[in-house]
Amino acid sequence: MTEIAPILVDLFILFAAAKVGGELFEYLRQPAVIGELLAGVLVGPHVFGMVGTEGEPVLEVVAELGVIILLFTVGLETSLADLRRVGRPAALVGVLGVLFPFLAGTGLMLGFGRGREEALFVAAAMVATSVGITARVLRDLGAVRTAAARVVLAAAVVDDILAVILLSVVAGLTEGDQSRLALIVSLIQVFAFLGVVVLAGPRLVRRLSGLAHTPVVPRSPFLFAVLVTLGLAALSGTIGLASIIGAFLAGVIFEFTREEIANQIEPLYEFLVPFFFAVTGSRLDPAVFADPGILGVAAAVTVVAVITKLAAGRLGAGALGRGGAWTVGLGMVPRGEVGFIVASLGLGLGIISAEMFAVVLAMTVLTTLFTPPVLGPAVRRQLKAPRPEEGG
Amino acid sequence: MTEIAPILVDLFILFAAAKVGGELFEYLRQPAVIGELLAGVLVGPHVFGMVGTEGEPVLEVVAELGVIILLFTVGLETSLADLRRVGRPAALVGVLGVLFPFLAGTGLMLGFGRGREEALFVAAAMVATSVGITARVLRDLGAVRTAAARVVLAAAVVDDILAVILLSVVAGLTEGDQSRLALIVSLIQVFAFLGVVVLAGPRLVRRLSGLAHTPVVPRSPFLFAVLVTLGLAALSGTIGLASIIGAFLAGVIFEFTREEIANQIEPLYEFLVPFFFAVTGSRLDPAVFADPGILGVAAAVTVVAVITKLAAGRLGAGALGRGGAWTVGLGMVPRGEVGFIVASLGLGLGIISAEMFAVVLAMTVLTTLFTPPVLGPAVRRQLKAPRPEEGG
Repeated sequence: MTEIAPILVDLFILFAAAKVGGELFEYLRQPAVIGELLAGVLVGPHVFGMVGTEGEPVLEVVAELGVIILLFTVGLETSLADLRRVGRPAALVGVLGVLFPFLAGTGLMLGFGRGREEALFVAAAMVATSVGITARVLRDLGAVRTAAARVVLAAAVVDDILAVILLSVVAGLTEGDQSRLALIVSLIQVFAFLGVVVLAGPRLVRRLSGLAHTPVVPRSPFLFAVLVTLGLAALSGTIGLASIIGAFLAGVIFEFTREEIANQIEPLYEFLVPFFFAVTGSRLDPAVFADPGILGVAAAVTVVAVITKLAAGRLGAGALGRGGAWTVGLGMVPRGEVGFIVASLGLGLGIISAEMFAVVLAMTVLTTLFTPPVLGPAVRRQLKAPRPEEGG
Repeated sequence: MTEIAPILVDLFILFAAAKVGGELFEYLRQPAVIGELLAGVLVGPHVFGMVGTEGEPVLEVVAELGVIILLFTVGLETSLADLRRVGRPAALVGVLGVLFPFLAGTGLMLGFGRGREEALFVAAAMVATSVGITARVLRDLGAVRTAAARVVLAAAVVDDILAVILLSVVAGLTEGDQSRLALIVSLIQVFAFLGVVVLAGPRLVRRLSGLAHTPVVPRSPFLFAVLVTLGLAALSGTIGLASIIGAFLAGVIFEFTREEIANQIEPLYEFLVPFFFAVTGSRLDPAVFADPGILGVAAAVTVVAVITKLAAGRLGAGALGRGGAWTVGLGMVPRGEVGFIVASLGLGLGIISAEMFAVVLAMTVLTTLFTPPVLGPAVRRQLKAPRPEEGG
């Protein structure tokens, strides 16, 4: 038997802190997300330690359920046609947004005198955008249907696929053995998954929805959507993509039932999503910044991580006009779970040192904290500005 | 980093199995709960092993969140006045329902040649009703407001308090040391908790709700209710009561906002509650019944566990008429997490053998599986029958 009561206490504290922090920031006319993140930092094990670390796997999974529901909800507001229309800029932003941080990150690490393998791993951990924060900001501002938002969401899918490839290649370079086969298998899985979901998904769901609409069970379309979301999230997580990519695509597939299920997703959203932001915040250990050496590396890595994504957005999404392109770049800045995974893989293999692991962790949290206050105003300007049609 | 993808797969499988099992049973005009439980048995680690055991703590917590939401929802349909009106029969059912299984269980174990301490522990594990299944059956049939339902719900609170006391006493008997102080402290906590919640809770919540209704955050009453539910569940879990007692009381406190929040609780209910039943089912290891010796003990313990609660209901709730009293007894039959906790405590102390642990586990699952098909028709008869006013 697991001792459940202490974990319930942790969940209560995280939820309460997130809600208080969120309300406070809304009251101050700031994005609620920042309040939720900072509340997480405060109650987390590194500051006031009100939330223990024993329940960590549970908290991580509840947080993951939160970001899955978040991306599903955002997907609900995105149609496949929308995504296709921004295909070209999104692909460009995705490719450049992987290339730039990887090259600049490798150079930076080598410049700091790190070994080749460690440099490659840290750089690989700097690559993958985690679109959760951006999705939340876009959603809070009602901006999911803007051209910039669509480019970010589609580019996040491209970005994640490239990150999987890059990770396999880097792991292959450092391990050296039969991982070429593993890479090929992994790529086939990823493309088969995307192919089936994007090509057959909508039609399949429409047909099954008819079946699910039979009055046997109330609210079937909602439950069916949740089931598919959980399934696609689990599947994309299993083949090496971020699980939120699967959740987002599930939302895109169910876009046609949006009216019917939006009301029912909302309470799930409000219960689960705050956990994601509070748990993410709780990971930050401000003590990392007490060592000036590490602080310098962390600052440099974070700056490079921000600038390279901005540049990718500016160059890749130029068709959206200058403001739109910067907004896209900003939206791609936050890093998250994929960075953690790469870094902990490197730590486990003995390739990344504990300090560089802390640096990667700090970079992911800082890029996450950095985004809402800067992205918010940029998105608001986009909502007001008359914008040129996106390139197609 | 926890590997999240495998746990997402487990959650997907449990959810899908529960939904398919539930739909199938509804289609067969049987209670959906049974389908969900049996689906859990099938996908669980002991039968088809589609759900691993590594993610177990996470699954347990998600299941616990499910039963917390379930009891909160049932509490929402129960007013304090309703509970007070059935105070006398409920107290009687609670007391007899603890006394009978404890005495009969001790006798049975001694009769099977078990030692005194093991007999006391097994008997203590037979005591506490877990009202989750009953609550679900009552809710599915729209019978939460019947007199029998109210007696069961109020008696479950009494029962749980007595179980805490009994457990402390038994642990004191076997450990022997300064646990008398611990018992007193524990009792003070329990009564302070109940006193504050029942006496001050409704007024406090009404006042704070006014505050929460300010338009800063949409859906505040819902979020506020969820926050309080999580808090009371965590608190009652921490002081040794079942966390569902706190969740039920939270529902009772918020009964006055029922109209406002019922719609928003529903999706949370439909997402989380199936996990509770599927995870509960997955605990059953049918292999226990391959050993005829253990099978005999398990059967005897289960029969005693059922009969003693039926007798307590019949004698304690006689004021409801014969049918009502039997319904109350049936509603008190299912055992659950408190039984597990007592048994694993005994296992950890080396007082309960592995076989008797399996027996307790089997008893809890069997009483849970037994209830819906028998309770359902009894409740339906109660809904039709003209019933005498409950004693007050």
